[in-house]
Formats: sequence, structure tokens, C-alpha cells
Amino acid sequence: METVDLRSDTVTRPTPAMRRAMAVAEVGDDLFGEDPTVRALEDRLAGLFGFGGALFVPSGVMANQIALRLLVAPGQEIVCDAEAHILAHEEGSPARYGGIQTRTVPGERGLLGAEELEAVLRPGNAYTVGTRAVALEQTHTRGGGAVYPVETLRAIRRLTGSAGVSVHIDGARIWNAHTATGTPLAEYGAPVADTLSVCLSKGLGAPVGSVLLTAAESLPRARSLRHGLGGGMRQSGILAAAGLHALDHHLERMAEDHTHAALLATGLRDAGCAVRPQETNVVLVDTPDAEEVVAGAAREGVLVTAPGPRTVRLVTHLGVGRQACRRAAGVLAALMGEGRRTRGVPASAGHAQQWKESEVA
Amino acid sequence: METVDLRSDTVTRPTPAMRRAMAVAEVGDDLFGEDPTVRALEDRLAGLFGFGGALFVPSGVMANQIALRLLVAPGQEIVCDAEAHILAHEEGSPARYGGIQTRTVPGERGLLGAEELEAVLRPGNAYTVGTRAVALEQTHTRGGGAVYPVETLRAIRRLTGSAGVSVHIDGARIWNAHTATGTPLAEYGAPVADTLSVCLSKGLGAPVGSVLLTAAESLPRARSLRHGLGGGMRQSGILAAAGLHALDHHLERMAEDHTHAALLATGLRDAGCAVRPQETNVVLVDTPDAEEVVAGAAREGVLVTAPGPRTVRLVTHLGVGRQACRRAAGVLAALMGEGRRTRGVPASAGHAQQWKESEVA
Amino acid sequence: METVDLRSDTVTRPTPAMRRAMAVAEVGDDLFGEDPTVRALEDRLAGLFGFGGALFVPSGVMANQIALRLLVAPGQEIVCDAEAHILAHEEGSPARYGGIQTRTVPGERGLLGAEELEAVLRPGNAYTVGTRAVALEQTHTRGGGAVYPVETLRAIRRLTGSAGVSVHIDGARIWNAHTATGTPLAEYGAPVADTLSVCLSKGLGAPVGSVLLTAAESLPRARSLRHGLGGGMRQSGILAAAGLHALDHHLERMAEDHTHAALLATGLRDAGCAVRPQETNVVLVDTPDAEEVVAGAAREGVLVTAPGPRTVRLVTHLGVGRQACRRAAGVLAALMGEGRRTRGVPASAGHAQQWKESEVA
Amino acid sequence: METVDLRSDTVTRPTPAMRRAMAVAEVGDDLFGEDPTVRALEDRLAGLFGFGGALFVPSGVMANQIALRLLVAPGQEIVCDAEAHILAHEEGSPARYGGIQTRTVPGERGLLGAEELEAVLRPGNAYTVGTRAVALEQTHTRGGGAVYPVETLRAIRRLTGSAGVSVHIDGARIWNAHTATGTPLAEYGAPVADTLSVCLSKGLGAPVGSVLLTAAESLPRARSLRHGLGGGMRQSGILAAAGLHALDHHLERMAEDHTHAALLATGLRDAGCAVRPQETNVVLVDTPDAEEVVAGAAREGVLVTAPGPRTVRLVTHLGVGRQACRRAAGVLAALMGEGRRTRGVPASAGHAQQWKESEVA
Repeated sequence: METVDLRSDTVTRPTPAMRRAMAVAEVGDDLFGEDPTVRALEDRLAGLFGFGGALFVPSGVMANQIALRLLVAPGQEIVCDAEAHILAHEEGSPARYGGIQTRTVPGERGLLGAEELEAVLRPGNAYTVGTRAVALEQTHTRGGGAVYPVETLRAIRRLTGSAGVSVHIDGARIWNAHTATGTPLAEYGAPVADTLSVCLSKGLGAPVGSVLLTAAESLPRARSLRHGLGGGMRQSGILAAAGLHALDHHLERMAEDHTHAALLATGLRDAGCAVRPQETNVVLVDTPDAEEVVAGAAREGVLVTAPGPRTVRLVTHLGVGRQACRRAAGVLAALMGEGRRTRGVPASAGHAQQWKESEVA
Repeated sequence: METVDLRSDTVTRPTPAMRRAMAVAEVGDDLFGEDPTVRALEDRLAGLFGFGGALFVPSGVMANQIALRLLVAPGQEIVCDAEAHILAHEEGSPARYGGIQTRTVPGERGLLGAEELEAVLRPGNAYTVGTRAVALEQTHTRGGGAVYPVETLRAIRRLTGSAGVSVHIDGARIWNAHTATGTPLAEYGAPVADTLSVCLSKGLGAPVGSVLLTAAESLPRARSLRHGLGGGMRQSGILAAAGLHALDHHLERMAEDHTHAALLATGLRDAGCAVRPQETNVVLVDTPDAEEVVAGAAREGVLVTAPGPRTVRLVTHLGVGRQACRRAAGVLAALMGEGRRTRGVPASAGHAQQWKESEVA
Repeated sequence: METVDLRSDTVTRPTPAMRRAMAVAEVGDDLFGEDPTVRALEDRLAGLFGFGGALFVPSGVMANQIALRLLVAPGQEIVCDAEAHILAHEEGSPARYGGIQTRTVPGERGLLGAEELEAVLRPGNAYTVGTRAVALEQTHTRGGGAVYPVETLRAIRRLTGSAGVSVHIDGARIWNAHTATGTPLAEYGAPVADTLSVCLSKGLGAPVGSVLLTAAESLPRARSLRHGLGGGMRQSGILAAAGLHALDHHLERMAEDHTHAALLATGLRDAGCAVRPQETNVVLVDTPDAEEVVAGAAREGVLVTAPGPRTVRLVTHLGVGRQACRRAAGVLAALMGEGRRTRGVPASAGHAQQWKESEVA
Repeated sequence: METVDLRSDTVTRPTPAMRRAMAVAEVGDDLFGEDPTVRALEDRLAGLFGFGGALFVPSGVMANQIALRLLVAPGQEIVCDAEAHILAHEEGSPARYGGIQTRTVPGERGLLGAEELEAVLRPGNAYTVGTRAVALEQTHTRGGGAVYPVETLRAIRRLTGSAGVSVHIDGARIWNAHTATGTPLAEYGAPVADTLSVCLSKGLGAPVGSVLLTAAESLPRARSLRHGLGGGMRQSGILAAAGLHALDHHLERMAEDHTHAALLATGLRDAGCAVRPQETNVVLVDTPDAEEVVAGAAREGVLVTAPGPRTVRLVTHLGVGRQACRRAAGVLAALMGEGRRTRGVPASAGHAQQWKESEVA
């Protein structure tokens, strides 16, 4: 019985073809600006999303952190949703290293609207801290892979533009938004954001790396910030080659991940599970004791996570096929569906400190 | 025609008696721990609120910042309401100097409830940033002087206590809460908070200073933080003497400020103004163009502020008597009441960047 | 037997005349820019030192910290001497709150020369951190009250000016330099520094406060930094009045402090003590066990400090007269002079961790 | 005519054998702790240097920054030499992100001795910032590849140990120290340091990566810091495989780099160049106009750098053979030797701002 790993789309291993691409990559010292493969990847992504500049970095966290610092000075403020990855999973770095204050808006499945934002943006003056940027997440991880419609992004851009407020998009899973909606990548990029981070090591299946997209004139500062954070790498063309390969070979197939997620969602819903809306490659299910389900499923070789005490999360990716999803649906339906051994929801579930979150990103 | 200054309760000038108390204060070098008047003030306030330690500092901002740093390490998180003074009016210092991440909850007139908080507190783990403290504001300035009932504070304390989350209360106007509710100061202090800041230069009418209340064992670290921020003062007993005098002579009279505020609220409501609920010494009035009202009132010698583009704020204090309030109510009713020259609310009020906030604290 | 307090010139208490000046000071809310006495003090000091802007703050630490942040961005570098007050006694604030890197030069009694500086200033580029400012201290406390000759300051100014490097002077005791050399204050100010901090609560004898001097255009940012650090005070004219009084009445008399220090130095030198060069109101004496001397003198009612394990420090000020100094010299000569009971210097004095520094500033 | 690249040992490209090792590396999601190749590399290096814990990170900058933060809290101080890589080439990150104050000692070719250190270490107390760690660099880059004798490290360790001060060693080129002296790696590691960073992408010739070595109990915090800085990578075993390969195949051959450097040093010295002492793979040459030499050599296909306005640097590595070094020596001798066209040293070379540094690390 093979393990079905639905913990995250970060667990994918490079395919043989991707490994070959990495093995033959032309490289140079990227800190001297001499790695042609890194340059090619950066140029390609800048072009795809309509930005003037791109910077390869070791992780999505670093891409987000550099982006926020390009837009917001210490002591200034960003507004984002309360479940944003930059707040939940980045070690408090916006405040800790950027000195950036965060105000949060509840959001609908993590998504914000222009009207909600208008009510909270605050112009700065001699006595009041000003909002300098809005940070959005596409797709929204903790919101269950929720997709920002491009119309919403445009409305936010209009609002913020007239208010002198910048927009950063954490596009770690922007590929999934594109796949789900058919909206061209170019429309999800520069027209609606000042900075955008995209990840190569989630649905695209590359082993390491994210790319920060920004204006060309911000690149020198972005490079300096990358260096100070410890993200300067030498012959990183080895990694960039995987990213280029992924763009060529793994982007179109991402629709399969969504099909598999839909299959999981349907299977679980049919079994009576409380499945939240599923749009992309993430499926969230409400259940009384999430940790118990995580443990039970693991015993059957199905790996999932609990992003909250009463929520189970499944994520599909290129390492999980149709059959594996069917098996996982069966195992999870038995644990969370109507046929499960009856378990009452604890009357007073108490505080979240009581549970252990087992999820990364 | 004398000016009626309702901009803030920070504008009060020391009375002759208070000046005499300052002039004869016994002093020493407080950085050597040798100022007896500072010591007396600290001891008195620690006793009043049931804390083991107290520290005199130049401002409420400093008291709040030291408190937050005592409770929360860089990269950790606090939860507070979105209109908190610590976010709006402290130059982003929690993030900028403390590296502290903030998540915000809308709040009702700035006040939070235990249930809202329970939904957002997040335990930390290897992958998730944890909430270390909740910050509350008593009374809530931007919420219009709203008072936390002691029951709410107790419920929040129970919740956070079981979750290992600390509580800071920004009690700049805690005196007004005590005056409005009759709840003893001792019940508003140590039983419901780990740290509390109280201000001497608002309703109490002292010229300078706030006091941080905390556990005795936190004092050495608090002193070190105060010194590093530049709050170490030498013969500050001069200022502390004013605080002691104020506790003796200005606390009980604070009820008059509330009576005057009620008089203003009633007068304006009777004139058809959109007055928000008034509990203490702050009155908020909604009006289509707040800056215009500020300017118009100033021309009549009535000084008020606009904490938002469509909100006017009046604050009563010991420098404003009954007659002055009557006059102010008349001037403001003419500008904001039903009898005013008709003014349509702009169809699209646009973004806040368009207005200038003229308020300090 | 009256105590002779030579621990620091910070221990002075306000004179009756100074107290009267404070008691009648005209005041207003300085955060609204409405305190006329604060304004008068700021204007006067700006004029004295030839600067366009001045800002009253609660302490010298805050004046220094704001100044450095005006000149140096996070991640940039200042050069200063290794014994500078900003490094030894300000809780690491340049790095902690300003993100400012420090490189240090040994200095001669804390004083640096243009040539030493030329060797270490580093221009920044894409790969190297650049030096943005040089910080000097006038007089140098840990250097024993050493005075920067104005020619040295001019030479440093020429060097740094051509290199695009700014100069900050921590002038906590600049009054003593002026008194010792007769160099006009104006020559010690704007012609040789971009920012200057001066202290009212040391030799001048005011109870609280320092003033930051800078360019007029830097004032809005300086105010914002002051507010965020918690240095915004309301009716601080009470304190500023003491500063104005001190400038009128305590500056000229500072020569007496130098005479008294010389009397101490001579007395101790005559008794065979290892007295270091004395120029102003500070006297440093080398002795095998400083803490023992501190304790022994205290038993005789003479209070001194030990800034290092084998150094005793005496500081004269307006609270110590000629007779008191004679008595102190006698007590200290008995403890440190040739006639003292023989005490060997410990064979291996070991590391400084073994001693306790008892000095503030 | 092939280019001879002596700019840095960071420019090496992976060999075919190293590429094969990377292509077949077994990998997993390292953020879940599941990459066996990363684990193998970490375990191997921990063993080699005698540490309990090891952490793979994208760069030497990140390894150094995490190490310093493990040892030193914000507001505390480290002592290092004035030319340390952590100050010159890491974007001010110790202060900027760690809030760490730095005091510097001149050093001899970048190397410090126990006696110099003893004079500057400062114990902290309520009034004074304490020294928490000493940072050393092995070999010292800006000192010309200077090697710390193990006896010096032991003496420093004894001093600091008794003073409660920690030691960090930036061992980016520790391999070269080992190669030059024959001192076992184990003696250069845990016995003399609390934390050590070693680099895989310099002399060892791997494309990307450094490893932080520390106590086992510090690993969770180190991982958290790595994540927050953006150094968390997924299937980084691809990169770790190159490191393991390099340890097997490129460590012993490093002696050749030293032979080549000696050949360059001798050749240039024979031609009358002012070559500084050469111990490892770095050669520094003093010359009146370094940038001119850099440009002239580049025209002949010999790439070198100018770490200062009057210093040229050559670094040997596995990509440069004996013949290439001979050719480089000839080209550089013509530019810097006695036979060069006479050029006077500028009488007043002025400030460093005038030159452009062209070196990375």
C-alpha cells in the first residue's frame, strides 16, 4: 500500500526529466550577475507577468519579505487578511525584520474586497500611521485555495492607486488561479500589483525557489535586501533550470490537480463530510477533532494536515494520481463521514492552545 | 470671547496648586533610584491598581511600548482592535522597535469581547506564529471614550489565562472608566491585566507623564527598556509631584467632565446632530465634512478635531466649564445640526487620503 | 558630616531660583506645538549653536538616538570611538532600534583624529556596507572629560564633508568644552556637525531634558521619531523653563567646577595617586581595586564611581563646593595615595566580568 | 586565449561528477525534515567539527546571521575585527535584523589575539551594554586569507569562556586553514567555538550553500530563524548532494590552490610587486591604482578584484590551473611590477569614496 501524501504541494520530487534539465544547466556566479539560467528564468517570469524586474530567491518567504520592504518603510503599515501566509507562516518577519505594522481584515475565505479595504485604509499624517500597502494572497492557502477574481483585483488596484497605496500579491499558488479561471497570467500580474511573488516549488514541482517580480528600478534594492537576508546564491542556475522546465512541462497539467481535488471534495461530500468550497488544489473539511483524523488517516497511509483544531486539509499535486485520490477519499470518508463512529463535538472546545497545528504552508 | 478648547484632554494646564506642589517637590537622581517623589508616585499607583511594580515614564506611548515588549518577543504577535491607539498613534512602534506583529479585530466602538478573541488567538508552533498578548484600551479613544465593563475584562482574562496569552491594557483614560462605572481602580488593574499604562496628563491634568504598571520582577527589564528608548530622566520628581497632586485633587472632579460631555451630546442631539453613544468625556459626531466643521468652529473660538473625514470629536476636561460647553454646543449645533445650511454628503467620498486628520491622542 | 556626591554631574537638584522659574513658566500642549517656553528654549539653543532646528526631548539618550536615525538608515554604518556613550550606555539602541552598524576606533582618551577616521571610513557599494556618519563625544565622558579642540572638529568636518559622511556630536557636556577652551558655542555647533545633542541636566543643573539640534528640514522627521520612541510630552515648558534659567545663570559658573576638579586632581596627584589628565569637571584615577575605593569612600560620606575595575571617577558640579572637594580629596588620597595600606594589584586581574560597574553616564 | 578568473573562489562551476551526484540525489521536503541528503550532509559536518547540530542554509551570510542571533540578543554587543566579512559584506544585518551592536578591534591581517580581546570585552550591568560574543573569521578574507593558529583560538576560548562570552567563527574558508596548517577540522570546531559557519560554494566548489554548526538544542530556534529569513528550502538535497561530493573529492585537492597562490605571490614578488603575506588561496598586492590594474588585467583576460583603492586581490580555486596562474602572474607583473610604466602614487589619495570596490566576498 503506497502512501498518499496530501499534506502539501510542496512535497513533490523532481521528475527524471527535470533532473536532467538541472544536470545540464549552464551556470555562473549569480552574485556577479553571471548565471545565464537564472537570468533566463527571471526574464521569462518578468515577461509572463508583465513586470520590468525579477529576482530569483530561495523561498516564497524571502520573496514576500523583500517585496514588502520595497513597498513599506519601518513604522508604516500594511493591511491584509487575518489568515494571510505572511502573518501566519513567516515567523513575524514583516514586523521583526521590516518594522512593518499590520492591520487585518477578516476576509471571505481569505479574500478581501475593495469596499472592505476602503473602510480601513488610513492616510498617514503627523499624528497617524499611514497604510502604505495592501497584501493579497492568490490563491489563498488558509482560505482553502480560494481564487481572487481578476475583477476584484482590478477594483482593489483602482482604489489603492487613487489612495497612493501599493499592492503586493503573494502568488505562491497564482498558477492554480490561472488554471482554475483561465485568466492569463499577464492580467494577474503587473496590471494589478506593484510586487508579486511566485513559487516554483509548489504546484509547479521544482525543488527550490521563488521569484520576486517588481519594477526594474527596484532591482538593485531588492538584490541588496536579498543579500542581507542571506538569499544570495552562487551557481543557482541549477535550481532555476528546474523552474524553466516546470514552466514548460508542469503548468498545463495543473488542471489535473484541480480535477483530483474536486474528486476528493465530491467523494467526501457524498459521504456526508463538511467540505468547504473547493476551487483549486486545496480541500478543507470541517470535523470535530482534526488531529484524530490526521493520525487515523496516517495509519492507513494517507497523509493530511490540520490547519486548525477542527479543520483537515488535503492538497493535490503532481505526485498524486487519480487512483491515490480515490483511495484517500475512502479512508477519509470513513474517518469524517456520516458512517464514522459517532463523536460529539466537545461542548466547549476551549482555546486553540490545546491543539497542535501540523501544517507548513 | 474666550476660546473653548475641546480638542483633547491633553491641553490642560497645571493649576496654581499643582504648580506649588511641583515647586516644593523633593527630588533626586531617578536613574540612581533616588527620587523620593517619583518613588512615592510609583508606589501609590502600584497600590491603587494592585501591581507589584510601577515605572514613571515621559509619555503614554512609552508606557505602552515598554509594556508590549515585556510581554511579547520580536516575531511574536499581539491581537488588538483595529482602531487601537497603539496602532493609530504610536508611529508603528510595536513593529518598528519591538518587532511585534499585530492582528486586528474590528471591535464594537473599539471594544473586544472574549468570544471574538477566542476565534482569532493562535497558538504558536514550529510552523505558525503564536499570539502572545491581547492589547485593550480603556477607555477607547477612537471608539468615543467607550468603557470596558469589568465583566468583559474578566472574561477576556479567563480566556487568555487558560491560553497562556498575556493582557496589556492601555489605560490612558482608565480614570474615566472608573468615574463612569464606579468600578474600583483595583478591579480594573492587576486582576485583569499583566501590564497597564495609566496617564497623568490627560483627564488628571498633570503636565507630563505616564506610569507603567507591571509585576515587580519585570521592573529591571522595564527600566532597561526605558533607558534605551530615551525615557530615563533625572530629577523627575518635579513631574511626579504633579501626578500625586492630581490623584488627590483631580480624580473625583472628573465626573464633571462626563456631565459636561453629556451636556454637549444632548445639546447636539437635540439639534439633530448624529451624536454617537457618549459614556465618558469624549463625544463623537458624524457629519458630512468634518474638516469644514473644525474650521467653522475655530472661527467661533471653539476648537475641536476630526479623527476621520466624517467625524468630529469633542473632549471635555478640567479646563472647560459648564458655560463654555453650552457655548460650544451652540456653535457646533449651528454647523452640524438640522438647521445648518444644507450640504449633501458627497456621492463618492473617495479615499481617506483626501482628508487630513487633525487629532493627536 | 555632609555627603559629598561626586558620582556624576547628573545629581544636581534645582536651585530655589530655578524652581521659581519653573513654577511660573507659561505652558501649552507641546505635541500641538503650543508650548511657548519649550519653543523659546529650542529657539535659543538653535541660535546659540547655529542650527536651523531644535527639539526638546526627555534625555540625552533620546537626543542621540533621534540624531543617528536622522543621519543613518538601517543597515548602514557609523564610526565612533570604542568608549562612546552611545555604545556603552544607551542599551544598544543604535543597533536595536536604528538597525545601525557600528565600527569603532580606539581613540585617545576617547577622541578621534581626522587621519584615523580617514583610514576607516568605507564608501558603500553594491557589495559593501558604507559609512554614513561619524559620531563624536564632546567632552568625552569615559575619556575623562576630554575636550575636542575645535581644530580637530574642523579637520574631521573637512574629511567627512568631502566623503559624503555626516557628523553627529554627542554634546552632553559641550558646555564644559566651551568653558575649558573659551571656544564660542557657535563654533562647536553647526560649522562642525550635522546634528548635535546638548544636555540640560548635567553641568547646567536643570532637572530633566536634552535638546537635539539639526537642520530645520529634519524637524518633522525628528518629531515623528520622538513620538514613536515615547518622548512626546505635553506641558513640558515646566522643564524647559529650568533649561532657560540654567543658560542664564549656570553656564558661566561652570568654570568653578573645573577649578574644583583641578583641585581634586592636584590633591590626589600630590598624594601619589595615578591621576589621568584632567581638563574639565571629570577626574579619573587609576587604582588597583576601584570597587574597594568606592566602598571605602562611601563610608566616609564621599560618593564616587568606578567606570572600570581599576578606575575611580569623580565629577564636580554645582552641588559641590570648594570645601567639600578638599574633604573628598583627603578621603580619597587616604584610600588611593602612597600612604594607603599596601595592596598588591591582583596577579591576574582576569576578565572584566568580575567587576561591577557602578556608573551611569 | 582563455579567461583566468581570479576574482573569487565563488566562481567555480560544478564538475561533471558533481552534477551527476546532484542528479541522482535522494530528496524530500526539508521543511518537514524529510530530505535524506540534507540530513546526511548536516550529520557529516556536525561530526567533522564536533558539533551536536547542523543546519543547511542558502548562503554564508545566512549561516552567520543565524549564528549571531543564537548567541546575542537585540541590544547586546559583539566584538569583532574591523574588516570582518559580517560587517563589510552582509548589508549591516547584525544590526539591521539582529539589533546587535558591534565594537571592533583593528586586528593583524584581520586576526585578533586574546590579549586585545581581554582589553575590550565589557561585562554588562544595569547601566552598561555587555559583550555577549566574539566573532572571528577563518581564514580572514579581507586580511588576505590569513589563518588563525589553533593556539590563538584556544586562548580566545579560554578568555571568553571564563567571561561568559560566546565565540562565533565565520569559517567560510576554514577548509583552507585546515589545508594550510594540517590542524584537524575537529580542533577548529566545537572545542573553540559555540557556533561555526562553513561554506560549500567557495573552495569546495559546490554551487550553493553553507552549513551552520551549533549545539543540538539550538536547532529548533535556528530553524525558526532560517524560516523567517526566507532560507527554508524544500527538496534542497539536490544542493546538499553537491556538498557531500565536494567533501569527498575537493577537500584534499585544495592544497593545489595554495600552491597556485604561492606561485602567483612569488612571481609577482620577483617582479617587484608589493605582495602581502600569502598563506592560503588569497593573494593581496598593494599598488597605486587598483582599479586601473583590474581594468588592464581584464583586457588581457585575467580577472581580479580591488578590495580597496590601492589593493588588488587574486583568489585561486579549482577552476584555475598552474598554467593559467603563470599567465596571470605575467599579465599582473607587467601591470604592477617594477617594469611597469612609472606611475606616481597620488600625493593625497583622498577618501575612499573616490574608488569603487569591485569585490563580493
